[in-house]
Amino acid sequence: MKKKIDDMGFIELVDTMGSATSVVNAARVSFGKRIEGGLSDKDKSLIKYLWTHKHTSPFRHAFFTFHIKAPIFVIRQWQKHQVGCSWNEISGRYVELDHSIHCPDLWRKSIKNVKQGSGGAIDNQEDITDLYVSACNYSYATYKEMLKQGVAREQARMILPLAQFTECYWSASLHAVIHFLQLRLAKDAQSEIRYYAQAIKALIESDDNFKFIMDVCL
Amino acid sequence: MKKKIDDMGFIELVDTMGSATSVVNAARVSFGKRIEGGLSDKDKSLIKYLWTHKHTSPFRHAFFTFHIKAPIFVIRQWQKHQVGCSWNEISGRYVELDHSIHCPDLWRKSIKNVKQGSGGAIDNQEDITDLYVSACNYSYATYKEMLKQGVAREQARMILPLAQFTECYWSASLHAVIHFLQLRLAKDAQSEIRYYAQAIKALIESDDNFKFIMDVCL
Amino acid sequence: MKKKIDDMGFIELVDTMGSATSVVNAARVSFGKRIEGGLSDKDKSLIKYLWTHKHTSPFRHAFFTFHIKAPIFVIRQWQKHQVGCSWNEISGRYVELDHSIHCPDLWRKSIKNVKQGSGGAIDNQEDITDLYVSACNYSYATYKEMLKQGVAREQARMILPLAQFTECYWSASLHAVIHFLQLRLAKDAQSEIRYYAQAIKALIESDDNFKFIMDVCL
Amino acid sequence: MKKKIDDMGFIELVDTMGSATSVVNAARVSFGKRIEGGLSDKDKSLIKYLWTHKHTSPFRHAFFTFHIKAPIFVIRQWQKHQVGCSWNEISGRYVELDHSIHCPDLWRKSIKNVKQGSGGAIDNQEDITDLYVSACNYSYATYKEMLKQGVAREQARMILPLAQFTECYWSASLHAVIHFLQLRLAKDAQSEIRYYAQAIKALIESDDNFKFIMDVCL
Repeated sequence: MKKKIDDMGFIELVDTMGSATSVVNAARVSFGKRIEGGLSDKDKSLIKYLWTHKHTSPFRHAFFTFHIKAPIFVIRQWQKHQVGCSWNEISGRYVELDHSIHCPDLWRKSIKNVKQGSGGAIDNQEDITDLYVSACNYSYATYKEMLKQGVAREQARMILPLAQFTECYWSASLHAVIHFLQLRLAKDAQSEIRYYAQAIKALIESDDNFKFIMDVCL
Repeated sequence: MKKKIDDMGFIELVDTMGSATSVVNAARVSFGKRIEGGLSDKDKSLIKYLWTHKHTSPFRHAFFTFHIKAPIFVIRQWQKHQVGCSWNEISGRYVELDHSIHCPDLWRKSIKNVKQGSGGAIDNQEDITDLYVSACNYSYATYKEMLKQGVAREQARMILPLAQFTECYWSASLHAVIHFLQLRLAKDAQSEIRYYAQAIKALIESDDNFKFIMDVCL
Repeated sequence: MKKKIDDMGFIELVDTMGSATSVVNAARVSFGKRIEGGLSDKDKSLIKYLWTHKHTSPFRHAFFTFHIKAPIFVIRQWQKHQVGCSWNEISGRYVELDHSIHCPDLWRKSIKNVKQGSGGAIDNQEDITDLYVSACNYSYATYKEMLKQGVAREQARMILPLAQFTECYWSASLHAVIHFLQLRLAKDAQSEIRYYAQAIKALIESDDNFKFIMDVCL
Repeated sequence: MKKKIDDMGFIELVDTMGSATSVVNAARVSFGKRIEGGLSDKDKSLIKYLWTHKHTSPFRHAFFTFHIKAPIFVIRQWQKHQVGCSWNEISGRYVELDHSIHCPDLWRKSIKNVKQGSGGAIDNQEDITDLYVSACNYSYATYKEMLKQGVAREQARMILPLAQFTECYWSASLHAVIHFLQLRLAKDAQSEIRYYAQAIKALIESDDNFKFIMDVCL
């Protein structure tokens, strides 16, 4: 399953281990019997109880692997999440990066309360886009020219902007994913990463039992 | 798949995410194409290259969940492994522990070079077993008597010996499992945990591609 | 600084890195200037803001090392705390463990709501203590006898009870310590570990600025 | 102590906890006595033994905090090191980034064996520098212009190049620092991060006992 994110990004759910029942079985490790398939009402109560009482360890026995294409500034925020996470990323040292640079649909105003990050739409959208795209193109053209003149990739890439797309494999426990969603679906998260968080949530919720867990935890 | 370990223990492989190809796909995240099924010769060379050059991150996108029944002193060594691992364990605070106490098939001699842990078989095997079993039975009888007299489980369990069996859910990345096996299959590992490590290895190697990885890494 | 815990345990604060000002300086990394010494009112507001808004990373730049002597069943709960923590522990494989076994001052009743762990004092305190001490002594005597007969320490220790004392070095970030205290000072924590948590808190609070942080976070 | 790194970067050692003796004391936790001050020959043998036999946990009870100013592409490599590490970084969402963009002293050639990253000096150094500086200036001017027109910082920063400087607080255990140095002092590490690794090593080695440990481990 794959979801496109605005201009050039995507999230693909590559692999899943376990299910909502893994949470229940991990919590009931001592009982020697294991449920399979869907969740009973009793299982659902248990999940609520565990989460409410901060018994989070049973949520670390289901895992997801995602393939992500996103701008570097988004991935930099994302990679601050490390507990329960495994990361692999394309390397600009070894691979020539293609001309994929994020351009927002909407430019947002700066606001006084800096902690919120940004405000409503700015007036002169097109002027800003022109300024921005022109600088992006100049950076990418310089990158290509440096490569052409024989500069090593690991040095030439230094000129690429933070809006350059990169690709990652991200494996994370259910608990780590929930923690990511709590922070990155929040109002004070930057919109650009929030779109990715929404896509992650939607991909996971295509399974009814995981949807139940998302409803409990978020 | 489940393997019995000496008297009362077991290892069960409950769940697996990914395969040897996950390692290859994570390492080649940038190429936009993904292999499926078995490993080509080129994939095998890549895996060898990655491991030899300590590029271990691609080995963190496959995961295993095991259900383990083992003595507490074994689990205490095991739980020193935490990076890339999730643990859930039966709690002696909430559950009455049953009469499962490990008794070795063979008593080993102490030796001068303490770092090796133990030497060959001791002479008077039966005498030692008698001493030991008698003390185990006394401890367990005291546990039961304390419970009968109304003592809380969380206090009564204090009298149980380190040989008491416990049960855990252990989820671990392929990399974490390999690291565990490196340390616990080694000659200076305590035999009691080595049996569990051997069972883990055998369970994983039932998949041919994982067997290839074990051969490369161990 | 060292605090004794009931019969034979202790906590010693061996080393500290940083102070409450490390939190402030880490949060203000961008400002190029660094405060030293005590906290201003503005610093205190910042600390409150950070904690309330779950910006916990600045709390991971101060560290503590403790030397702990505690019963094994207490250490087993403690070692579930691993993020931001380093552990070293005496090994019963290499060292002969001395006759230090925890005996509670008070035996608590089991109660119906198992999640609370235990209730008020049981009536027949002395009877329980007699039962318990007698079994402890039997276990320890068996341990000594097995060693005398030449059994390796790594096997002989299996007979020792969970109340046997062990010793650890525990290094933890300020954030990890706060997380430990949140869980182990709580009402549903087992009293035996709560005493250790209280001692940790008291040792840290001997510094006024850390005391301020404890008041904000706990 | 502070070291400048090429044009605009620096490493400052802000704080240290413990010393080489912390390693020895953690390893000897069971002996109830603690050395202070320098290392005896016996202590030095112990340290060698521990490292050679991969008993790394005693190396996790000494900690360092560094203040780092480095280009974003360097910090991105560095932040792949997470085990035993705490990170705090200036945020381009909240703070206007100043005009600090890394320009190499020497442009290196691309080479066929891509795994080594780069080869010797390229011929036309000045031409490349002109191309590069001109694009850097254009990017930074666009950033300033977008801010002037009211675009939120979190969006405007997207145009800044990967060579833009950032600042971090990095706290890491001795073990984590050694692991970082092993990878980033190696021949196949990118020169730009190798300079930082050399500075870290030099700062730590100003303490004779830590110098001994570096000699053993690197």
